Amino acid sequence: MDCVFCKIVAGEIPGAKVYETDEVLAFLDINPVHPGHTLVIPKKHYANIEEAPAEVLSQVISAVKKVGLALKIGLNYQGYNVTENNDPAAGQLIAHLHFHVIPRFEGDGLKLWPQRQYSAGELEATAEKLKKVL
Amino acid sequence: MDCVFCKIVAGEIPGAKVYETDEVLAFLDINPVHPGHTLVIPKKHYANIEEAPAEVLSQVISAVKKVGLALKIGLNYQGYNVTENNDPAAGQLIAHLHFHVIPRFEGDGLKLWPQRQYSAGELEATAEKLKKVL
Repeated sequence: MDCVFCKIVAGEIPGAKVYETDEVLAFLDINPVHPGHTLVIPKKHYANIEEAPAEVLSQVISAVKKVGLALKIGLNYQGYNVTENNDPAAGQLIAHLHFHVIPRFEGDGLKLWPQRQYSAGELEATAEKLKKVL
Repeated sequence: MDCVFCKIVAGEIPGAKVYETDEVLAFLDINPVHPGHTLVIPKKHYANIEEAPAEVLSQVISAVKKVGLALKIGLNYQGYNVTENNDPAAGQLIAHLHFHVIPRFEGDGLKLWPQRQYSAGELEATAEKLKKVL
């Protein structure tokens, strides 16, 4: 499989690894929002969150928690965003499940996303559509 | 405790609930990026990912996975971002652990974040600092 993250797991291409278990690998994103921006992935290939079984997600999210705390303790950050993107429409560039752990400091100017309001009745109608498939 | 998400869990204030288990609740964000933008929370109060035990994170991330798929099936979106913010420096507004599931479509124009490059030696030095605390 021609997956850059699988190649980092296999040691075929270099990665700045910071944490690893039998199932999970954490390494620095080479194009960080801020230095220390880390990617946490399952070593086994899953395209996105939908493909990964519950036990894999559990291992990955526990590693994310460890990395987040390390960004505060080891690099003196004041917080972090955890972000995982699914599908190209959502900005997913590498089709191997990965969680970004993005360190943050007060006043760094990063805007997360623009928000809007629901129009009258739209909130309820949207909730109904989702409830039907959940 | 004066927590708005605890009040939604308790039914003291309304929430557009879309999915619920004994431990987890999912409801619509009233200021969505796009309609269907959902928040997934543990019913029990934890301020952020650091406070939540592994089994709670496991339950929450499995619910996130269900909600993401529902946004595609129920509302015809083409992808979604999963984001969880820790601490005010990272834009966390409500101090009750919550995962945003943000539906996306091709060409919606949402920019995730600006990226930069590491200077020479900075990547390796940053990785070393993190490895020491991981």
